[in-house]
Amino acid sequence: MEILVAKSSGFCFGVKRAIKIADKCANSAPEGDIFTLGPIIHNPQVVKRLEESNVFAKKSLEDIDSGTVIIRSHGVKLEEYNEAKEKGLGIVDATCPFVKKAQELVARLTGEGYTVIVVGEKDHPEVKGLISYGNEQVRVVSGLAELADMPRVKRLGIVAQTTLPMEKLEDVVRFCLHKATEIKVFNTICNATSTRQAESAALAKQADVMVVVGGKNSANTRRLAEVCLAIQPKTYHIEVASELDPAWFAGALIAGITSGASTPDWLINDVVERISAMCPK
Amino acid sequence: MEILVAKSSGFCFGVKRAIKIADKCANSAPEGDIFTLGPIIHNPQVVKRLEESNVFAKKSLEDIDSGTVIIRSHGVKLEEYNEAKEKGLGIVDATCPFVKKAQELVARLTGEGYTVIVVGEKDHPEVKGLISYGNEQVRVVSGLAELADMPRVKRLGIVAQTTLPMEKLEDVVRFCLHKATEIKVFNTICNATSTRQAESAALAKQADVMVVVGGKNSANTRRLAEVCLAIQPKTYHIEVASELDPAWFAGALIAGITSGASTPDWLINDVVERISAMCPK
Repeated sequence: MEILVAKSSGFCFGVKRAIKIADKCANSAPEGDIFTLGPIIHNPQVVKRLEESNVFAKKSLEDIDSGTVIIRSHGVKLEEYNEAKEKGLGIVDATCPFVKKAQELVARLTGEGYTVIVVGEKDHPEVKGLISYGNEQVRVVSGLAELADMPRVKRLGIVAQTTLPMEKLEDVVRFCLHKATEIKVFNTICNATSTRQAESAALAKQADVMVVVGGKNSANTRRLAEVCLAIQPKTYHIEVASELDPAWFAGALIAGITSGASTPDWLINDVVERISAMCPK
Repeated sequence: MEILVAKSSGFCFGVKRAIKIADKCANSAPEGDIFTLGPIIHNPQVVKRLEESNVFAKKSLEDIDSGTVIIRSHGVKLEEYNEAKEKGLGIVDATCPFVKKAQELVARLTGEGYTVIVVGEKDHPEVKGLISYGNEQVRVVSGLAELADMPRVKRLGIVAQTTLPMEKLEDVVRFCLHKATEIKVFNTICNATSTRQAESAALAKQADVMVVVGGKNSANTRRLAEVCLAIQPKTYHIEVASELDPAWFAGALIAGITSGASTPDWLINDVVERISAMCPK
């Protein structure tokens, strides 16, 4: 049986890069302690591995008085960045370059006098960071309902949370055409999620059995499993390799593997190895 | 019986203004002949009235060697404007200020390095004028089909024909979000048509009989009649006052009057007077 892993499976570019930067920082052993501001990703195994390299996750800058702070891929608020500098901490910035670009665009649009809308989730750390680069007029909207009371403005700038579904940006821009004479939109959506879904769907068409690896509480992994299930009824959503059942692969010529954005590569590798051992070629 | 005329009935602002400018020009009697480049509006009575004041419609600048040329509300191509200047003609520019603004925006976006899309009808004189203010990369699209082969660009500028239905602009902008990282949209649509429709619909709700005045071959008048008919079954579409039938108004307390964008005020006044005479208070 052949095992095919979706190319875009696992961590997105920004998360991969942030973990690499954190590892490098741990290995270069700067003076003092090393911290990440919030867990580097919402995955306990990755956080634990960093702890073993003496990189500790802290909730806020209040808990960090000296040493080096690593900024995770979501980015931080401009105020936090400045506070870390004022505290004299070493700063290792692992902000995803796509998020960084969106932060710069919020600052640029604000500077150019645009009323700025960030389309995204108010409570998401990335969005909290994004709006900190604007002024107090920056508005976060997650959908049309929040735009109902928006006054008409002359110049409107629109930026999106990098993980926003495209349809949400489309809806907001469509509505805003009625609310401003000039609209400058930056499509800052990173296409990792949509690419992942498209590739997984293509793989599900080809495979005789499909395994989706990732947290049962991970929205993007669950959505991925739904996409695959609609194409290949023999789709199984698992969190770890030990859940695999040899019966799933009986008679299969091709097994497809995909995973959510928060699933580390080694978990995927574990799954691939376990399946290989179950079904020798 | 009360007669109510829709407030936005008749010529739009730009057309009214152009006719006023032409009248003023005729009355000020500049040296030499006076011409309009194309008929000032597509209404033979208005054109005839101007002829009586010695203002003649000419198809092209080739037919005008001296005197004064009046530019109509649609505007003209930049090349035509320059040609008229080079010929030493007097120029009276009656281009609608909303069209003028759109022309300037095409020039500005082109100058700023944007790839420019004009959403509108390729053969409409306004659109021909608009694109002449850009470079050879300016693209006219009337709908999504014409965008299918559009390559991805970095910076896209979008401007609309001033009489475009809003949904067309919305559709094109939505599509273009997938085609460019930055989109600068100017909503140059003049809301005269949509305002007219909304006001006429409100009047049709109030009135016991509705009269829509305007050419049977005028698309915007026909659409207006449809809108009113859907609300008030006693809706009549006429071109001139002589078509009115007293029977239509039997038992009515309120008669509503509206008209298309190419219907001159005096035609509407004729209709109001004739109805008044038919149904004395």
